[in-house]
Amino acid sequence: MIWTKKDILDIESLDAEEIELILRTAAGMLEISERPIKKVPTLRGKTIILFFAEPSTRTRMSFDIAAKRLSADSVSISASTSSIVKGETLIDTAKNLEAMNPDIIVMRHPFAGAPHFISSRLNASVINAGDGMHAHPTQALLDMLTVKRKFGRIKGLKVSIIGDISHSRVARSDIAGFTKMGASVSIFGPPTMIPIGIESLGAAVASGMEDALSGADVVMMLRIQRERQEEALFPSVREYAKLYGMNRDRLALLKENAIIMHPGPMNRGVEISPEVADGPKTVILNQVTNGVAVRMALFFLLSGERHHEGQ
Amino acid sequence: MIWTKKDILDIESLDAEEIELILRTAAGMLEISERPIKKVPTLRGKTIILFFAEPSTRTRMSFDIAAKRLSADSVSISASTSSIVKGETLIDTAKNLEAMNPDIIVMRHPFAGAPHFISSRLNASVINAGDGMHAHPTQALLDMLTVKRKFGRIKGLKVSIIGDISHSRVARSDIAGFTKMGASVSIFGPPTMIPIGIESLGAAVASGMEDALSGADVVMMLRIQRERQEEALFPSVREYAKLYGMNRDRLALLKENAIIMHPGPMNRGVEISPEVADGPKTVILNQVTNGVAVRMALFFLLSGERHHEGQ
Amino acid sequence: MIWTKKDILDIESLDAEEIELILRTAAGMLEISERPIKKVPTLRGKTIILFFAEPSTRTRMSFDIAAKRLSADSVSISASTSSIVKGETLIDTAKNLEAMNPDIIVMRHPFAGAPHFISSRLNASVINAGDGMHAHPTQALLDMLTVKRKFGRIKGLKVSIIGDISHSRVARSDIAGFTKMGASVSIFGPPTMIPIGIESLGAAVASGMEDALSGADVVMMLRIQRERQEEALFPSVREYAKLYGMNRDRLALLKENAIIMHPGPMNRGVEISPEVADGPKTVILNQVTNGVAVRMALFFLLSGERHHEGQ
Repeated sequence: MIWTKKDILDIESLDAEEIELILRTAAGMLEISERPIKKVPTLRGKTIILFFAEPSTRTRMSFDIAAKRLSADSVSISASTSSIVKGETLIDTAKNLEAMNPDIIVMRHPFAGAPHFISSRLNASVINAGDGMHAHPTQALLDMLTVKRKFGRIKGLKVSIIGDISHSRVARSDIAGFTKMGASVSIFGPPTMIPIGIESLGAAVASGMEDALSGADVVMMLRIQRERQEEALFPSVREYAKLYGMNRDRLALLKENAIIMHPGPMNRGVEISPEVADGPKTVILNQVTNGVAVRMALFFLLSGERHHEGQ
Repeated sequence: MIWTKKDILDIESLDAEEIELILRTAAGMLEISERPIKKVPTLRGKTIILFFAEPSTRTRMSFDIAAKRLSADSVSISASTSSIVKGETLIDTAKNLEAMNPDIIVMRHPFAGAPHFISSRLNASVINAGDGMHAHPTQALLDMLTVKRKFGRIKGLKVSIIGDISHSRVARSDIAGFTKMGASVSIFGPPTMIPIGIESLGAAVASGMEDALSGADVVMMLRIQRERQEEALFPSVREYAKLYGMNRDRLALLKENAIIMHPGPMNRGVEISPEVADGPKTVILNQVTNGVAVRMALFFLLSGERHHEGQ
Repeated sequence: MIWTKKDILDIESLDAEEIELILRTAAGMLEISERPIKKVPTLRGKTIILFFAEPSTRTRMSFDIAAKRLSADSVSISASTSSIVKGETLIDTAKNLEAMNPDIIVMRHPFAGAPHFISSRLNASVINAGDGMHAHPTQALLDMLTVKRKFGRIKGLKVSIIGDISHSRVARSDIAGFTKMGASVSIFGPPTMIPIGIESLGAAVASGMEDALSGADVVMMLRIQRERQEEALFPSVREYAKLYGMNRDRLALLKENAIIMHPGPMNRGVEISPEVADGPKTVILNQVTNGVAVRMALFFLLSGERHHEGQ
C-alpha cells in the first residue's frame, strides 16, 4: 500500500488500511529511539512548523523530538507570540507560514475545525495536534499502537473509556479509531459529561462502572479537569474518585491481562488511584514512548520519502 | 565586490552596490528553499542568537528557518525570559551573549538605536530585526528583492507607501532603500501620521490618494495599529478604510502591471480590502518567501564564507 | 580516571578527582567554541531536555549552545507551558519526559531538592541547573574553571564571597567546591543575610569588609535582589553599595593579581561599581565563556562517550 493522504486531520478520514500502515511504520520507528545514536537522516532538509495556539508540554515536545530524530528542522510558534493577537485571520497566518516553504505544519488550536480549515487552503501537509473538543488523531493512533503492541491485535477487544466524554477530543478520536479497527467501545462517566447521541459514533454507553469495566481488555481513564467542578458538572473530586475513578477494587472487573491507559497528565487520586497508576497493568509511559514513534511515522509518510533502510 | 560590513543596522549605512550584492545573493538562496532537501551545509558550526525583546512571529521564524536552511545553529531568547527584567543593562546582556561565542546576533528591540548601540561594543555581527520606530532593514531588503524580481529593476519605478508613516520603521527603511536604488517614493496617509520633515528622506508627500497612487508601479500598504485610534490619530476603522485603504476602485489608478505589497499582518477590510488582498496584483506571500532568502543571504555574507557551489 | 556518576546534582556529591576531570575536560572544550566551525559530532543522536521551571536567560542558553556545539538535539520546556500548572506531580512529569528517551535532563526548579528527587527515579542523567536556594553546581564548576585557568591552581587561594549568602545557591555550591579543592573561603554580607551555622560548610565568616577582602585572590560579588529590600533585609541600595559593594577603593585590599567574579546579572552601582565591573581585574565574561565549556564537558562525560579526537 502506498500512502496518498496530504493531511492527518482526524481518524474518521483515515481508512483501516491507512491506520494499519501508520501503526506498522510507527512500530519500525520505535527502535530508532532505543539506539545509542537516536537519529536517522531520513528527513534531512525538511522543515516542520509546530504551530501551537494552545499550551502544551508533552505533545509539542513529542512532535519536536520526533522531527529531530528524523533530522528534520523544526521551528515552533506559540499563540502568545503569534500574530493571532494582532487580529490577523487564521488563513492569513497559515498562508504566511506556508510562504516559508515548510513541508509539514503541525497545529494545535482551541477552535474545532481549525486544522481542517487551513489544510484545504494550503499545499503543505497539516497534522492536527488537537483542535478544541473535536479531534486528537495522533493521540488515538498512539493509543492504538499501544494496544496493538500489547495484544497483537485491536479487533475483538473491549475498550472502555471512562470520564468526561463531552469535553474530550481524545475520547472522540479513540472511539472513531478503535471501532474502525474492530474493537467494541464502551463509555461511561457522569451523566452531565456524556454527550447525547454519542452512540452514533459507534460506542455503547454503559449503565454503570461495573457494566463499563466488566470483561474489558483496555481501560482508558480520561483526565477530569477540575475547572469543570465550578460548572457543577460533577459534585466533588472525592465523589468523582469514588464513583468514576479506577482503583484496586475495580481492577477485579477487568480481564486478567487488561491494560490501563491515560492520555496524561494524570490527577492521581481522582480519576486514577496511585496504586493503579503505578501498578503492573498500567501502560501510560508506553503511550508516551509510542507517541514519539507515531509522530515520526506520520512525518515520514507525509513527506513522501521511502523508508530508510538500516542507517 | 567583496562584502566588508560587520553589521546590518539600517539601510542608510549600506551603499547601492552592497544592496545589489545582498539582493543578488538572496536571489540565489531562493532556489534552496524549493528543493526537496532544503538545506545546505554552508554555515555548519556557526551560532546565531535570535534576541527578540519584542514579540514577533513571522520575523523570528523567518530568521530561524533561514539559519537552519544554512545548517547554522540558532538559539532564541525573548524579552520575557531575558535578564532585562532583572535590571541588567543592555550592554551587559549583549556582552554576556557575546561571551558564548555567537557569530551573529539578530536583535529586535522596542528602543530605536538599541542594535546600533550594542553593535559598536561587540565583535559579533549584529542584524537589526526592527528597533522601535527607527529601522527594519531586512524588511526593506525583502521588499526590494520582491520588486526587483517582479520588474527586473528598481530604478525609475514609482513606489507609493500609504498609511501610518510616523510609527512605521518599515516605511522609514523602505523610503531609504527605494530612493537609494533610484525609485521615486511617494507617501500618503492621515495628516496626523505623516511626520514633519519626512521629505528630507527623499520621499514626496502626496496631496491625496489619487496623487499618491496615480501611475504607481508598487504600492505598499502599511498596517494600521488599532491602538492608534484611541490616541485619536484616526477617526474610525471604517473611515480609515474609505479614505486610506486600498480597494478595487483604486486599483484603476495604478499602472497596469503594478503590484500591491504589505509587510503583514494585514487588517483585511481596513488598510486593504479582501478582494485586493486576494487579487492577482498582490505579492504579499512572495514578500514572505523572499524574506527567508534575504536573511539567508545576510547570514551568509556576514559569516564571511564563500558561496556554496552546487551541494 | 573513568567517569561513573549518572547525575550532577550538587558539588558535595562530587569528589576532588571528579571535579578535576570535569575541569580538565571543560578546558579541552573551550577550544571548540573558538573554531570557525564550532561544532563536533560527538553527541550526534543524543537527546537533551532542558526543563526550566524557573525563568532563565543565560543558563538555559548556555546549556542549549553547549548541546548544539556537540551536535546533540536539545528540546526545551518551561514552567509556563508545562503540565505543572495542570497539577501533575513532578515525578509524573519527569517520568513522562523520560518516556521520550532523552539521554540527559537538565532541570532548574524553584524547590530545593527537586532534581535529586527525580534523579533517583529516572534512568536518564539529571543535571541540576539550580534548585531553589540549594545548589547550582554548574555555576560552581565554571567558577572553579575560571579560577584554575587564571591561577593555574585552586589550592591555597583565598576566595571571598560577598553579599546575600542566605538566598544564594551559587554561594552554597561555590563554598563547597572551593573548600573541597583546597582554597580557603571567607564570606561576608549584611548580618541578616548570613545564615547561622554557615561555618559548618567550611567557610569563615569575616568580621568586616576589610577582613573579608584583605589578601584575597578571588572575590565573588553576589547579586543583591532588590526585592529583598522590601523584606527589610537591607536598608537601601545606596547604603548596600557603600557597606558591601566592590569599588575602586576596596580593590587596594586585594592581592595584586586578584580577580573579581560575579555570577550575573550585575546590578551596576550596587554590589559592584561600574569602574570595577569594566576594570582589568574582572573576569565576568570569562565566566560566561567557561560556562559553555563546563556544560559541554558534563554532557560529554554523562553520555559515556569517549573523547572526540581532532575532528
